[in-house]
Amino acid sequence: MFDLKTYLENQRQLIDNALTDYIKRFCLSERMLAPVSYVIEAGGKRLRPVLCIAACTAVGGKTSHALPAAAALEMIHTYSLIHDDLPALDNDLLRRGKPTCHVKFDEATAILTGDALLTMSFEVLSEAGGEAPVTDGALWLKVINLISNAAGCRGMIEGQARDLAFEGVKLNQDQLEAMHRLKTGALIKSAVQAGGLIGKGTDQQIAHLITYAENIGLAFQVIDDLLNIKGDPSVMGKAVGTDQLHQKNTYPTLLGIDSSERYARQLIDSALKALTIFDNKADPLRAIADYVVHRNR
Amino acid sequence: MFDLKTYLENQRQLIDNALTDYIKRFCLSERMLAPVSYVIEAGGKRLRPVLCIAACTAVGGKTSHALPAAAALEMIHTYSLIHDDLPALDNDLLRRGKPTCHVKFDEATAILTGDALLTMSFEVLSEAGGEAPVTDGALWLKVINLISNAAGCRGMIEGQARDLAFEGVKLNQDQLEAMHRLKTGALIKSAVQAGGLIGKGTDQQIAHLITYAENIGLAFQVIDDLLNIKGDPSVMGKAVGTDQLHQKNTYPTLLGIDSSERYARQLIDSALKALTIFDNKADPLRAIADYVVHRNR
Repeated sequence: MFDLKTYLENQRQLIDNALTDYIKRFCLSERMLAPVSYVIEAGGKRLRPVLCIAACTAVGGKTSHALPAAAALEMIHTYSLIHDDLPALDNDLLRRGKPTCHVKFDEATAILTGDALLTMSFEVLSEAGGEAPVTDGALWLKVINLISNAAGCRGMIEGQARDLAFEGVKLNQDQLEAMHRLKTGALIKSAVQAGGLIGKGTDQQIAHLITYAENIGLAFQVIDDLLNIKGDPSVMGKAVGTDQLHQKNTYPTLLGIDSSERYARQLIDSALKALTIFDNKADPLRAIADYVVHRNR
Repeated sequence: MFDLKTYLENQRQLIDNALTDYIKRFCLSERMLAPVSYVIEAGGKRLRPVLCIAACTAVGGKTSHALPAAAALEMIHTYSLIHDDLPALDNDLLRRGKPTCHVKFDEATAILTGDALLTMSFEVLSEAGGEAPVTDGALWLKVINLISNAAGCRGMIEGQARDLAFEGVKLNQDQLEAMHRLKTGALIKSAVQAGGLIGKGTDQQIAHLITYAENIGLAFQVIDDLLNIKGDPSVMGKAVGTDQLHQKNTYPTLLGIDSSERYARQLIDSALKALTIFDNKADPLRAIADYVVHRNR
């Protein structure tokens, strides 16, 4: 039986060490290091980096090869949270159990800290590509391209813009799903895809990994919506009930709570089915799929 | 005699066309395309992209090879202006003769538009690297690395953070210079260096290009400070006198106007001296150095 708890602890330790090394090395002074460390050390599930590593090892690759991409993905995710939390956007005060960056520091610092992490992710990726065997140059350029695409105006940023535009606008399930595929799905998909590429998976393996990622990405969002209603703020480290406050479109409001839970389980089943072509090296990915629906934060 | 005016017009046309093609292709919907087009089409000197192309052709490279990097550099520069103009930072209302992004749209859109352009620059660079001959993979990874370094916490962002922290704090010339080398110098240097690399210049040529870039970068800033005192707002497309208002440290306040002008000319002389190893293919770089001190916007 695969022990997810120990696996996650070990991976998170590796990822956190890598993140700490990078931010110390890439910040010239305490001026940016302080806020960057603050937001990175606030922790979080590290879902995207863990997925990247797990996808890499599922196809037979080495954890160490995926680690820079894993760290870069967490930097991009963290930047997106910092900017989303700003007063002009979601105006959230609490994140990962701590005051948000603009509350702890100030708005100018929070804007720069987000910019810093986004930029740093590409410093990390291009450095890793430069240090890889020269024959892997094209592979790393592809990794940079797919991650930047996922984070950009054909991915996360377009999703965020839709989310803002849709406040108070009633959506149908297709519109809601399209928004989530962009806002959170694209980066999760790129994490798994990057891991598969770095691990040198076959085209068939990577196609199956993408199906897996699309399904858990959406399930993750459905559960996020449910936790925003039923979750315990002290466990989650952020406020609940905020979706209703901002009149956000969510799966529970659209489908009801029971149907949303059923839908999340269906998505996870599809994700697991996509993994049947893999051997036990994909057990971390299988366990993560279960965790996505059973998590409480 | 080299005709800079025609040269700049031609290069700007190429750069603007490339930018328009990229933003149309990389924005999934009108939602982000509208603000991104607005800030890009507001124009500007296009100094960084022109320098990138001119450095590439100075070492014998092709303009078309440098064009993606040139466009990416302008995207990064434009993102930095959008975020610098935000109310939490410089709170500027006018840029390139038009209302700033957060005035024309809103703060949330301006934050996302900056994020979008920064991300897009790496979509452009990684795509260009992926389309280049596979043997140039390492070269393009190096270009991405040096540009992201220049834009990050060892470059532009650290400079911006210092600029904010230093408002109302009296600096000496060394501190002021260190700040400008980070805030504007690093990206200008990376533009010239990237052009030299893409054009496959020798190590010696690139070292000389870097010296050129360091000197014109600083001269550019000295002239910027002078224009903020003596410039014509209708020509410049932005307000003047703002440095004094924000108690910014500037060369004129530190050295006086005459000494600042003399210093800018000395820097340009050093820049031109670094170009003596090049033939007439470096004439655009020579003319740009003169333009930097004689410009009125």
